[in-house]
Amino acid sequence: MNFELTILGSSSATPIHQGHPTAQVLNIRERFFMIDCGEGTQGQFLKYKFKLNKLSHIFISHLHGDHYLGLVGLLSTMHLQGRTTEIHIYGQPELMDVIELQLRLSQTRLRYQLIFHPVQHYAPAIIYEDDDMLIKSIVLNHRIPCTGYLFSEKPKPRKLIISKLQQHNIPFSFYGRLKDGFDYEDDEGKIIPNTELTISSTAPRSYAFCSDTCYDESIIDEIKGVNLLYHEATFMNDLAERAKTTFHSTSLQAATIAKKAGVDKLLVGHFSARYRDLKPLLDEARTVFKNTELAIEGHKFSVE
Amino acid sequence: MNFELTILGSSSATPIHQGHPTAQVLNIRERFFMIDCGEGTQGQFLKYKFKLNKLSHIFISHLHGDHYLGLVGLLSTMHLQGRTTEIHIYGQPELMDVIELQLRLSQTRLRYQLIFHPVQHYAPAIIYEDDDMLIKSIVLNHRIPCTGYLFSEKPKPRKLIISKLQQHNIPFSFYGRLKDGFDYEDDEGKIIPNTELTISSTAPRSYAFCSDTCYDESIIDEIKGVNLLYHEATFMNDLAERAKTTFHSTSLQAATIAKKAGVDKLLVGHFSARYRDLKPLLDEARTVFKNTELAIEGHKFSVE
Repeated sequence: MNFELTILGSSSATPIHQGHPTAQVLNIRERFFMIDCGEGTQGQFLKYKFKLNKLSHIFISHLHGDHYLGLVGLLSTMHLQGRTTEIHIYGQPELMDVIELQLRLSQTRLRYQLIFHPVQHYAPAIIYEDDDMLIKSIVLNHRIPCTGYLFSEKPKPRKLIISKLQQHNIPFSFYGRLKDGFDYEDDEGKIIPNTELTISSTAPRSYAFCSDTCYDESIIDEIKGVNLLYHEATFMNDLAERAKTTFHSTSLQAATIAKKAGVDKLLVGHFSARYRDLKPLLDEARTVFKNTELAIEGHKFSVE
Repeated sequence: MNFELTILGSSSATPIHQGHPTAQVLNIRERFFMIDCGEGTQGQFLKYKFKLNKLSHIFISHLHGDHYLGLVGLLSTMHLQGRTTEIHIYGQPELMDVIELQLRLSQTRLRYQLIFHPVQHYAPAIIYEDDDMLIKSIVLNHRIPCTGYLFSEKPKPRKLIISKLQQHNIPFSFYGRLKDGFDYEDDEGKIIPNTELTISSTAPRSYAFCSDTCYDESIIDEIKGVNLLYHEATFMNDLAERAKTTFHSTSLQAATIAKKAGVDKLLVGHFSARYRDLKPLLDEARTVFKNTELAIEGHKFSVE
């Protein structure tokens, strides 16, 4: 069952040749969630052979152009391609003003329903929930209101060991409680521990997207123990002062957050255009948090 | 002295891999005018090694996304690159609403002055004039208000033949009138024709941009005799009905306009994504107007 992130762009605001601004697609069991949509993202869909019509939910972190200027073009292309299934968009409330104005001026009446979910940036919240998964907003600390997103699978029910159930004559009516982790107690008060009757299912997986933000430890509780963390790393540590004034992070700071949050793996991205060679950014992060990778455009990262 | 058009993109609304939406740069004697700015245009500046800071004027035809969605990102990048010289933008009045909203939401205070010139689409008008050139708007006929642009050099003064002036003892005070084409008359009423005393300068050059528009002969008077005409040709003639309902033109129609307007050369562009091979569009146009070229991305067209 897929849980795979694809990087469509990870440059910061000043464009570089062949480098695209932030956009990612998260495939959770063949459901496709897009996070941020910088200028040119629809071209990246073509390049990496993703189908636009598979997208069901779009999450925009904030209203700096390098994180959303590709959105209206992408929505318009979906319309021209004949999409009729609804799309859900999450972002700051004013994002809807931009979309509405631009669609109105082009006299575009979308063939599909656009359902906009405004996110608030002053407190984390559950913004999406279904039987299998949960999506929470994360309060980031940037120059303008900015929201990260945490995608988590829900814990799956434990798997029953049928031979053991038969051996202990467990009544069928108790199977549900066993799946939820309860011990079995028979009429005579004898207890059979759950672990003797069931095995655990695959662990739920999680991905946290944190961009753009300055170094802020208040997010640590929100992202504790995630399998995969994307944290912006616009600068190297020698520009820590510049990172601070622009509300961005250094590679070292991203790694420090990853370490303190005890995540499995860190991806750094949103690289300043000044870095032609990204390896020093990676090396710097790895001095603090070894399991770090660069969020290079076109690369995929799976959580098993 | 340059008069050179560079095509940065000529795809229509539905994006194709490696094909960019409309954007052009017109270099008139090292002054750089941009016409339209589809999504990804700032990336095209990098690719074709144009310097953003050389741009002085930007002309947007209309508010369909494939003609302007790259503008706010480009303005923002100029700001991040430290531009301080003013920029002039021409477009439908509502374009300023879009720019203002997006800059406000990103809390961007531009370091340079942005001077917006609203254009009206119900009548052609002179929208720019200086000592050397003139820019007029052209009323196009599209689904929403849409403006073409005509760039013309002003006629240059005639060149004096110094030896002839000396031979005829023409007083210095009359040189200005000779440059403007007047004959000389001496005190005794003897006339020396201007053509004996001067030679003509290089002919003024002109470029007309007409996209998007359905076939409409009312533009012919506006673009009569231009050296270079860009006219949209979204479809082949077998889709003339579709061209009509979408307010676009066929390649044959573009050529018919070029022929009736007596232009020197025609460029066709704004190709529908359905055409992988563009040669049939060119062939079709050439059946009516031989001196036609395709506006291929990256190609340059000079007027001598």
